[in-house]
Amino acid sequence: MTKLWVVKIGGNIIDDPSQLNDFLRQFVLLDGLKILVHGGGKIASTIGDKLGIVSRYEQGRRITDAATLDLVTMVYGGLINKQMVAAIQALGCNAIGLTGADANLMLADKRLIKEVDYGYVGDIKQSGINALFLHTILLQGMLPVIAPLTHDGEGIMLNTNADTIAQEISKAMAGLMEVQLIYCFDKKGLLANVSDDTSVIDNIDEEIFQQLKQEGVVTGGMIPKIENALSAIRAKVSKVIIGHAADIKQLATGNAGTKIQ
Amino acid sequence: MTKLWVVKIGGNIIDDPSQLNDFLRQFVLLDGLKILVHGGGKIASTIGDKLGIVSRYEQGRRITDAATLDLVTMVYGGLINKQMVAAIQALGCNAIGLTGADANLMLADKRLIKEVDYGYVGDIKQSGINALFLHTILLQGMLPVIAPLTHDGEGIMLNTNADTIAQEISKAMAGLMEVQLIYCFDKKGLLANVSDDTSVIDNIDEEIFQQLKQEGVVTGGMIPKIENALSAIRAKVSKVIIGHAADIKQLATGNAGTKIQ
Repeated sequence: MTKLWVVKIGGNIIDDPSQLNDFLRQFVLLDGLKILVHGGGKIASTIGDKLGIVSRYEQGRRITDAATLDLVTMVYGGLINKQMVAAIQALGCNAIGLTGADANLMLADKRLIKEVDYGYVGDIKQSGINALFLHTILLQGMLPVIAPLTHDGEGIMLNTNADTIAQEISKAMAGLMEVQLIYCFDKKGLLANVSDDTSVIDNIDEEIFQQLKQEGVVTGGMIPKIENALSAIRAKVSKVIIGHAADIKQLATGNAGTKIQ
Repeated sequence: MTKLWVVKIGGNIIDDPSQLNDFLRQFVLLDGLKILVHGGGKIASTIGDKLGIVSRYEQGRRITDAATLDLVTMVYGGLINKQMVAAIQALGCNAIGLTGADANLMLADKRLIKEVDYGYVGDIKQSGINALFLHTILLQGMLPVIAPLTHDGEGIMLNTNADTIAQEISKAMAGLMEVQLIYCFDKKGLLANVSDDTSVIDNIDEEIFQQLKQEGVVTGGMIPKIENALSAIRAKVSKVIIGHAADIKQLATGNAGTKIQ
């Protein structure tokens, strides 16, 4: 089967033009088909502050009121996405920037209000990823660059977590290609000792994860990250790798980061 | 040959959600393949004002400094484009939003500084339109929604006039399809008497245009509009129609507006 890399980069890289350019230069050289999913970055909050839009968070997720939805639609879907597409084009790769509304790529439900009203936040529907469209444009030589925005099919854009998008796209493509999912973040991988960057745990599976959780090695925000990765593996994604964006080449060749399989 | 409508809508429609929705509902019903090109709208200036970005114009064109480029990239490429794509998706049409960087759709040169430094403004290169890509996605059933942004191939987005984009795309597609270009603006068409909305001139060609110009009937901003239309006709675009967005159906059937051929 054709190999596909799904790579997610977050705000810490996006906020630093020099790191971002270094990353992109390495990324475009990865052997095989590629999809890039990007997160937000501080620029949305900076612009929001100037516009008088107050950023509110609950459990690490931005509360998306109508003004914030407009803000993220323009910053994620316009500024960040298009600057990244132009930068990748300059590297000789035929990038195409997409949100969930474009080509009906990602159809979502507005999250139901339970304890928290997250506002215009979207949870991707069952079979909500247009995998055939991605398959078609990948085979036409294009490199999709995906912003963390979905739509509800009724005219409303929705804000959706980029980690989740990368995972859902990987799962949807796993039936069509051999998918390897790389989450880039600001650590070298999952660390046995959080203050020691050399203590990267090379491999994790379900059993090791449960053990590390019991021992208190995996805590906080890393728990859902690993749970998501294991869920992708169960859905036939070949491999999930977590590591630092600066190591993208080594993450792809298996010489850095934490591999989950 | 397959029929293709290239329709351009401007700021006056975009700024009015009710007019825009009425237009889109009629537009998606046009018989044949369709491309929508949109302009800016006052929202860019409104957001720019809040961000402390001062809008400067020379000869009717916005001067695009670095801050303004970021502003139009997010407002045109993000907010306006994605809201329009989501709205068209809700009408059951498979819209896909694109700037010139996406799929290398429109490659431009940054305008050389002569009397005026327009800043980050792009003039589309000779053969700079990726007509084959548009052809492919149109035949796959998609409806391209194009923002007035190009790129220079070296990583920089550029601001480009939407009228020009509609014209260049029409010319580029004229080799592949039977193209009819509709410019929607805030008048019923070219008027013999500017204060009489019923005085629409039905047909114009090169000869009639020269005569109307001499008689002072066509003046000001209408002169480049008609010149652009005639240039499109010389480049094998079948027909150019100028009229009011509210009449889009009648413009397409030849029952309203000014036809240039």
